[in-house]
Amino acid sequence: MRMYPVIMAGGSGTRFWPLSRQARPKQFLPLTSKNPLIVETQRRLGKLATSATTYVVCGARHAPQVKKHLPKIPKANVLVEPEARNTAPAIALAVAAVRQRDPQGLMVVLPSDQHVADTAGFQAALQKAAAVAQNGSIVTLGITPHRPETGYGYIRVGTTTDGATAVAAFVEKPSLEKAQAYLSEGGYLWNAGIFVFRADVMFDAFRTHMPELFAALEPIAQAWGTRKQAAAVSKHFKRMPSTSIDYGIAEKFARMAVVPGDFGWSDVGSFNALPEVRPVDTAGNVLDGPGAMAIDAKGCVIVARERPVAIVGMTDVVVVDAGDAILVIPKDKSQDVRKVIEALKAKKSLQPYL
Amino acid sequence: MRMYPVIMAGGSGTRFWPLSRQARPKQFLPLTSKNPLIVETQRRLGKLATSATTYVVCGARHAPQVKKHLPKIPKANVLVEPEARNTAPAIALAVAAVRQRDPQGLMVVLPSDQHVADTAGFQAALQKAAAVAQNGSIVTLGITPHRPETGYGYIRVGTTTDGATAVAAFVEKPSLEKAQAYLSEGGYLWNAGIFVFRADVMFDAFRTHMPELFAALEPIAQAWGTRKQAAAVSKHFKRMPSTSIDYGIAEKFARMAVVPGDFGWSDVGSFNALPEVRPVDTAGNVLDGPGAMAIDAKGCVIVARERPVAIVGMTDVVVVDAGDAILVIPKDKSQDVRKVIEALKAKKSLQPYL
Repeated sequence: MRMYPVIMAGGSGTRFWPLSRQARPKQFLPLTSKNPLIVETQRRLGKLATSATTYVVCGARHAPQVKKHLPKIPKANVLVEPEARNTAPAIALAVAAVRQRDPQGLMVVLPSDQHVADTAGFQAALQKAAAVAQNGSIVTLGITPHRPETGYGYIRVGTTTDGATAVAAFVEKPSLEKAQAYLSEGGYLWNAGIFVFRADVMFDAFRTHMPELFAALEPIAQAWGTRKQAAAVSKHFKRMPSTSIDYGIAEKFARMAVVPGDFGWSDVGSFNALPEVRPVDTAGNVLDGPGAMAIDAKGCVIVARERPVAIVGMTDVVVVDAGDAILVIPKDKSQDVRKVIEALKAKKSLQPYL
Repeated sequence: MRMYPVIMAGGSGTRFWPLSRQARPKQFLPLTSKNPLIVETQRRLGKLATSATTYVVCGARHAPQVKKHLPKIPKANVLVEPEARNTAPAIALAVAAVRQRDPQGLMVVLPSDQHVADTAGFQAALQKAAAVAQNGSIVTLGITPHRPETGYGYIRVGTTTDGATAVAAFVEKPSLEKAQAYLSEGGYLWNAGIFVFRADVMFDAFRTHMPELFAALEPIAQAWGTRKQAAAVSKHFKRMPSTSIDYGIAEKFARMAVVPGDFGWSDVGSFNALPEVRPVDTAGNVLDGPGAMAIDAKGCVIVARERPVAIVGMTDVVVVDAGDAILVIPKDKSQDVRKVIEALKAKKSLQPYL
């Protein structure tokens, strides 16, 4: 079964500052291995796809990095968004591209910045999802939760018919109390933002559920593969509403299906997630880089690739030396790194560090 | 009254790693102002002395830095210890030098790495000590304690006769319980390691109380100012016992006097002491350097002179970026920086950071 992976690399995440920057967002960082997340994302597909059928959607600023890190992907498959407009327009662009070469082509939309521990399990889930999607469903992978996570959206599982399990509902990021209830009740999965569908099915879904987007997508799709393609993208893309695929399509589409999976998935949402996805020492520290020195330290994350960074007598602290800037933050407050971004934005002399 | 200050710069302190190194010990660091501590130490003397009568004792490795930072001090006054042998031999060397030019010269021995907030108060105390020392006493400045410090030695104050207050006893660094008792009872002062005495008085004290040291000092003193001086120092200095002036002389000498002082003294013993001697922001943070960013932080010490160092949501933590190495440690565990030194010593690739 031929698959058309679409790696979504439009993110401008700031939650890994000072490693991540506007010019070098998270997907280009080697957070889980020696390779950038986006490289791991492509490798994870293994034999399910070839570079020739793999697409990447990204912003103009990051296209050179995509081409550098994924050199085997044809340049024409690197789809550049004229501006960042959330996931529905990004997917629409990929639908236009795939539909032109293979109208019923089976697309697999993947965020470029996630981690999966069990590649074989991931591939098996994708294959199952592909089989269901062949029949006209839009399929999402749902991750079996192992903790009452409040940082993810949830999927309530519906009934199973002909081997396909329906999505009963998408649920917003819950309170801790609700997350604990979801975990104990069962029947809830994490929404990983991974979707499998036929190009024509999504094209029609846009027509039905996002007519404003479709009005801009149609001329782009018509021009795709012709000399008018670039002009059409340039002219119409910005007319698309800045909406997520979840809100625009997944929550409305009648034949939403879910394939559960338990393959060591993480969205690597902040430094706090690194101990899930990296080796830890006997005291639970992540020591990333030859300079990381943990002395009487527990549960810390130390990124020290350039020079010695010594942590003494501390617990659950993140210390990141990015070369030209340094961050120290409690692990459970990792999200507050956005406050640094705000402080950098507020002071002109600090803006080069954004 | 002519004074001969002797600035003791033989220290190899490691408690300010990564700012301090074997090649750049604490006295050469600008910890309390823009000037190195040793420069502040000389300036603090004001009109009590001239550069021509000021001496520095240091190791060979640090003599070039002494000459660089204190260029007005004659080169002949920079006394180089052939090896580090604690304070009694260092002072003996200075006694040989001063005695040769002014046998009853009034010497003021000062550690090179302390801080004083009230310079006028300090000078007044020194002048009082000088008057007492003229009569043949060895005088130490005793600092009025304002907290039950366990990191300093104490002086128990004795009786006062003819304007001179005797030292009843020198007391070792106490337990917290004892330190609290000293503070509430009164009659105890901190031992600052500052001594005032006539050159001939200390020379005789060495003869009486440290005969082994004196046996090495005598030929050095005889050769001082002749062409044999360097050879004598080289031959005999290493024969002196490695003993502190406190243990070797002060605890034994009959006419030990003390002049109390309350002039904002600190020995700047570790990063923990920096909030005493530096400006702090409204949240009690010491922000040293243009890169220091404290966000939701309280009581922290941030040294960031080269690049942004952002601390978010932390309390009472020390973060020091020394350019080529970084330290993160709780303020109240600052002494444990020695564990980093041990770790650096244990690994050959890290020894350049010592």
